[in-house]
Amino acid sequence: MSPLPDSGKLALFHGPGTALEIKSYPVSPLERGELLVKNVYTTLCGSDLHTYCGLRNEPCPTVLGHEIVGRIVAIHPDHSATDLTGQPIWPGDLITWTVFASDPQSINAQRGIPQKGDQLFKYGHVRVQEPEVFHGGLAEYCVLKPHTGIIRLPETMPVAIAATLNCSVATVAGALRMAGDLTNKTILITGMGHLGITCAAMCREAGASWIAAADITDQRLQQAQRFGADALFDMKIPAADLHTALQQHTNGRGVDVVFDMSGSPDAMEFGLHALGIGGVAVWVGAVFNTRRLQIDPEQIIRKLITIKGIHNYNFTDFRYAYDFLQQHWSTYPFSEVVEKEFPLEVVNEAFTYAVSRKPLRVGIRLE
Amino acid sequence: MSPLPDSGKLALFHGPGTALEIKSYPVSPLERGELLVKNVYTTLCGSDLHTYCGLRNEPCPTVLGHEIVGRIVAIHPDHSATDLTGQPIWPGDLITWTVFASDPQSINAQRGIPQKGDQLFKYGHVRVQEPEVFHGGLAEYCVLKPHTGIIRLPETMPVAIAATLNCSVATVAGALRMAGDLTNKTILITGMGHLGITCAAMCREAGASWIAAADITDQRLQQAQRFGADALFDMKIPAADLHTALQQHTNGRGVDVVFDMSGSPDAMEFGLHALGIGGVAVWVGAVFNTRRLQIDPEQIIRKLITIKGIHNYNFTDFRYAYDFLQQHWSTYPFSEVVEKEFPLEVVNEAFTYAVSRKPLRVGIRLE
Repeated sequence: MSPLPDSGKLALFHGPGTALEIKSYPVSPLERGELLVKNVYTTLCGSDLHTYCGLRNEPCPTVLGHEIVGRIVAIHPDHSATDLTGQPIWPGDLITWTVFASDPQSINAQRGIPQKGDQLFKYGHVRVQEPEVFHGGLAEYCVLKPHTGIIRLPETMPVAIAATLNCSVATVAGALRMAGDLTNKTILITGMGHLGITCAAMCREAGASWIAAADITDQRLQQAQRFGADALFDMKIPAADLHTALQQHTNGRGVDVVFDMSGSPDAMEFGLHALGIGGVAVWVGAVFNTRRLQIDPEQIIRKLITIKGIHNYNFTDFRYAYDFLQQHWSTYPFSEVVEKEFPLEVVNEAFTYAVSRKPLRVGIRLE
Repeated sequence: MSPLPDSGKLALFHGPGTALEIKSYPVSPLERGELLVKNVYTTLCGSDLHTYCGLRNEPCPTVLGHEIVGRIVAIHPDHSATDLTGQPIWPGDLITWTVFASDPQSINAQRGIPQKGDQLFKYGHVRVQEPEVFHGGLAEYCVLKPHTGIIRLPETMPVAIAATLNCSVATVAGALRMAGDLTNKTILITGMGHLGITCAAMCREAGASWIAAADITDQRLQQAQRFGADALFDMKIPAADLHTALQQHTNGRGVDVVFDMSGSPDAMEFGLHALGIGGVAVWVGAVFNTRRLQIDPEQIIRKLITIKGIHNYNFTDFRYAYDFLQQHWSTYPFSEVVEKEFPLEVVNEAFTYAVSRKPLRVGIRLE
């Protein structure tokens, strides 16, 4: 095992309304099956911003950031030293990894939902308690727990693009798995943030025949078009008019699949109404408290509608996301996703920028 | 082609609140690809009763009854003269058939939802307009349209049991297909009418590890036990207490699958709450107007819940239902389902009995 560094810096988050604090902590020896990674790049995800603003609670103090790319520093001898694809991994390799680690023998993991497995550990969501301090992206290092899914990245993939793989892109891959075969299907995507634009591009590559993007922001709709959307729906227009337009586009059939990436109850209700016979709604965005949806069960039954919720993703989705991004990171303008980069030292500026300007992502360059 | 009868009787339904009228009509020559069947036995389904009571509307006058068993009288030479399993069929054979016929080339049919295909025709749901009069179960004859799925029945299967195959039993088969693999799964079924008891038995045979039956009627709960239910939940008890009991039975995990056969919004909301991580709710019962359900999308997402509506069934479900009933009609007390039988001449007595006494089924013996 390579020699470990003595210490590393991290940005400690104490809670909403408090500036993050840059502190230095010792790097502990690796436990069984762990890896030490030197973080290279982290993007701030929507949920990081929700935590920062107090819209969701994490155990504090914590190290935020879970969309991370890093380089392997050391691998404990009890680790298999292979990634999810079975390729060997070595110190110096550029990698990303699943946002979670859990017991692979637990019921949920065995049923294909490892993100809800027992002994669940989620990077960027854990209280800092010495000696366990390096478990988030806003830090120089990250210690990977056993059963974390790792993917070795090609050096050609820009790290600012690769960073979103293990959260947003993989979650979209999970949403597509939930939706089933998209070949020649008509699609509506509500909410054109990073999840939405990635979804548009992924649906396009999965063979969808027609993709409608809906949002309340003109700029995001324009961007959606460059990520594969065929039609743009301004959700500020009355729902009845939007519904009529969607029916015209689909010859009165309704859409086959709707993905909600917005978390807006209005958008989810609109989406259900837009579905045709046998349609599938996949809900992704509403990972925060919203009003209850009003659903007519007779319509769900007579139209044979399916509704699926997905939170995070499994190992299959993670690999699908990698394959997609590896093939298509330059097919679509993913290079424009990070609008501004900051070093870790000014992480508070990064949050302020992200919250006030609402770019798809800001990036934290860590080396 | 065998010679056709000159005429046949049927019970004409003019609308809610009016006595059904027994009338005789001429039997017309068969059109291309049609079959003429002499009805042997019809059971009154819950939806027949809903129409009779005015809770749903059918185009009138009509011939109600769609759970039908009959004997083939004649087969038009353009018919393949085979059933869904590929076996040859002949005049004199005892058969049942799908409640619908539709264009097999239409989009919905191609996508596995023939019950919503184009040119949809549904037995027991069509206006009587001469010469097309024999299209329901409360009649001596029924003319089967092209693309109707037919299954030849063994003479050993009691017709009173076989009659429920093409509606209730096949719909339950569809619900099980929607739910996916049930091996070692825990199940909650809300509503223990014919759909519910059939569902309990079918889940048992599909390998479910634990089946809870819920209803508001003690008698139906007792009956459910004999159809394979392991635990009985009286829905008159407060929902919070029922929830606690269900959690105890499932080691705090929640149930894997809930089938709603009741159509009750309270039951559907309770069922969603009862589901564990990755759980599946299949809604079947609410084929009438109800209040809107109140659904928390965050729970659907964080628990990776799936909700599926199913209305009627496809050809695969119909065959699954036949295989199930053929193997298990005597394993469970299906022979008790029809509590009372009536001849067609006193069909009004049959409806009065069914509406006032609420048995699982009343039967109409037609020969």
